[in-house]
Amino acid sequence: MPTTRQVLLKSRPHGPAGLDNFDMREAELPALADDDVAVRAIYMSLDPYMRGRLDAEKSYAANFEVGAPMIARCVGEVTESLNPKFQAGEVVVGMMDWADHSVVAGGKGIAKVDADLAPLPYFLGLLGMPGLTAWVGMREIGQPKEGETLFVSAASGAVGQLAGQMGKIAGCKVMGCAGTDAKLAYVTEELGFDAVFNHRTDTDYLAAMQRICPDGIDVNFENVGGAMLEAALEHANNYARFIQCGAISQYNLVGDQRYGVKNLEHLHRKRVRMQGFIVTDHWHLMREFQVEVAGWLKAGQIKYKIDITEGLENATQAFLGLLEGENFGKKVIKIGPETVS
Amino acid sequence: MPTTRQVLLKSRPHGPAGLDNFDMREAELPALADDDVAVRAIYMSLDPYMRGRLDAEKSYAANFEVGAPMIARCVGEVTESLNPKFQAGEVVVGMMDWADHSVVAGGKGIAKVDADLAPLPYFLGLLGMPGLTAWVGMREIGQPKEGETLFVSAASGAVGQLAGQMGKIAGCKVMGCAGTDAKLAYVTEELGFDAVFNHRTDTDYLAAMQRICPDGIDVNFENVGGAMLEAALEHANNYARFIQCGAISQYNLVGDQRYGVKNLEHLHRKRVRMQGFIVTDHWHLMREFQVEVAGWLKAGQIKYKIDITEGLENATQAFLGLLEGENFGKKVIKIGPETVS
Repeated sequence: MPTTRQVLLKSRPHGPAGLDNFDMREAELPALADDDVAVRAIYMSLDPYMRGRLDAEKSYAANFEVGAPMIARCVGEVTESLNPKFQAGEVVVGMMDWADHSVVAGGKGIAKVDADLAPLPYFLGLLGMPGLTAWVGMREIGQPKEGETLFVSAASGAVGQLAGQMGKIAGCKVMGCAGTDAKLAYVTEELGFDAVFNHRTDTDYLAAMQRICPDGIDVNFENVGGAMLEAALEHANNYARFIQCGAISQYNLVGDQRYGVKNLEHLHRKRVRMQGFIVTDHWHLMREFQVEVAGWLKAGQIKYKIDITEGLENATQAFLGLLEGENFGKKVIKIGPETVS
Repeated sequence: MPTTRQVLLKSRPHGPAGLDNFDMREAELPALADDDVAVRAIYMSLDPYMRGRLDAEKSYAANFEVGAPMIARCVGEVTESLNPKFQAGEVVVGMMDWADHSVVAGGKGIAKVDADLAPLPYFLGLLGMPGLTAWVGMREIGQPKEGETLFVSAASGAVGQLAGQMGKIAGCKVMGCAGTDAKLAYVTEELGFDAVFNHRTDTDYLAAMQRICPDGIDVNFENVGGAMLEAALEHANNYARFIQCGAISQYNLVGDQRYGVKNLEHLHRKRVRMQGFIVTDHWHLMREFQVEVAGWLKAGQIKYKIDITEGLENATQAFLGLLEGENFGKKVIKIGPETVS
């Protein structure tokens, strides 16, 4: 039997996740049954939503099981297939183990990658789940109009980058925040954000928003939550739309450690619509989304930064860093060579 | 010059409003200019949103001015008119002073009352601003579907009564809370609510909701805010709609006294849409609303409880009581006799 390295969930964190919640082992791969597909991982996506899957409490994504491999979206090469839709040597994207090799039961949820559209890691970012998240949130909930102000928290992140650039394409003034000066320089100089602040050094978020968004906030793309959300609501204009995408500031907190938002009265005072969504509900839009965004990419209207860490053995540390904002752009682990057989 | 009693805002409260923030005086009525209408008040509406108008901070309704009369929606008799649209002896509804007599400048915002539709106080409740609030919230935001669960906080209040009965008409299971056993008996026995709890004695709101709403919450009509909203969000189903109408539990609190809602992550986890609105944005629907609700009333499909206090001199105490939930049904002050000249 062939073997593979796998990263397991060893125990559930209570509060901040740590290295001791994970383990790596060498495991035998199961023999393929009908319709199964064996895949060698090339790139693996790390995303904040995975933090919720570590908990026992049911999140929207199914929980990871203690003692079983962690799961992530990966781009990989089919090495063996008993599924008529996939052939060895093809490049696919879908949910796989945190592992060098996975067997995708029934070929479920994997799709071929059109490598002509963009570099492979983009299918885990700009043209993948995070990109679709930004695109759906802006299109279905944010509905930005020309001249409005869009605020994007975590502006240089996997989702924020596209959300902000979609705001510029829609004719908005686009403001945001990020956690390092390099990130701020990137989103203003490369992505075209109009004004930004550093949320680690400029901790009076409301004052910062008042300074950089003189016309208030019409569309808020929320990735951070907690005090950042409270400030955006305080600075929101009438009829603002709040795209509730994530709350990374809260994911490692439990119970009373979580931030209490005290100004929800603004929802009725300012007639705010605050709406959450899960990208998987909108998966049927993937092709339409990819065509539009690949077009923008080709036309030079958007850019996208990927932050690659080499080696499956470094994935756990990179994931913990992601939860602390240590990534710069979409976080991807490179597990194996791009060259396909 | 004729004179009138008027209730004034004497000072702005910081925290709970008290009797000493108000004053009563005898004042001269101004002479009528072109298009002005003089009105003798019959009924005056007291509503929670008025608490926001006491503050210096801008609320959605313009602030009351210190030293000037408080303003409220009233039903009254036209006593003199220099406005061609109104004649002495007609009954009208609109914004007037907290006073026995008001001069409505330019006749602005007043409308004739069709007294055949319902008793006069209903035009301040079921067929007036609070009724339109319930109707717009349910129709535009809640969009209840047959078989869903609707939860209404402040179920026996001016808005909650109609919201709950609209839920029944839509085929929902309707649950709610109120602050006395008499109110609970009223909404279940008279209005047809399916299950309720007393939020003063049953203070673990989440446990109470779990008990009375075994299928979760699909539509939440929010009048209370704070811990009640947090519990409803915790118990919400996927794709729930939260009608953000008011937050009476928070109106007398300032700064850090306000309740911090810690579980807004459920907005994205559960794909919740939480939307606020102000009824005056929807005023053009008044006639359509009145026709539909008057039809339900005539058909015996809905009931509506009015809580009348006699005498302008008791209005301030009644308003403070309203903020503490001491009213039972829509709060109205009777200022003068119904008999028109």
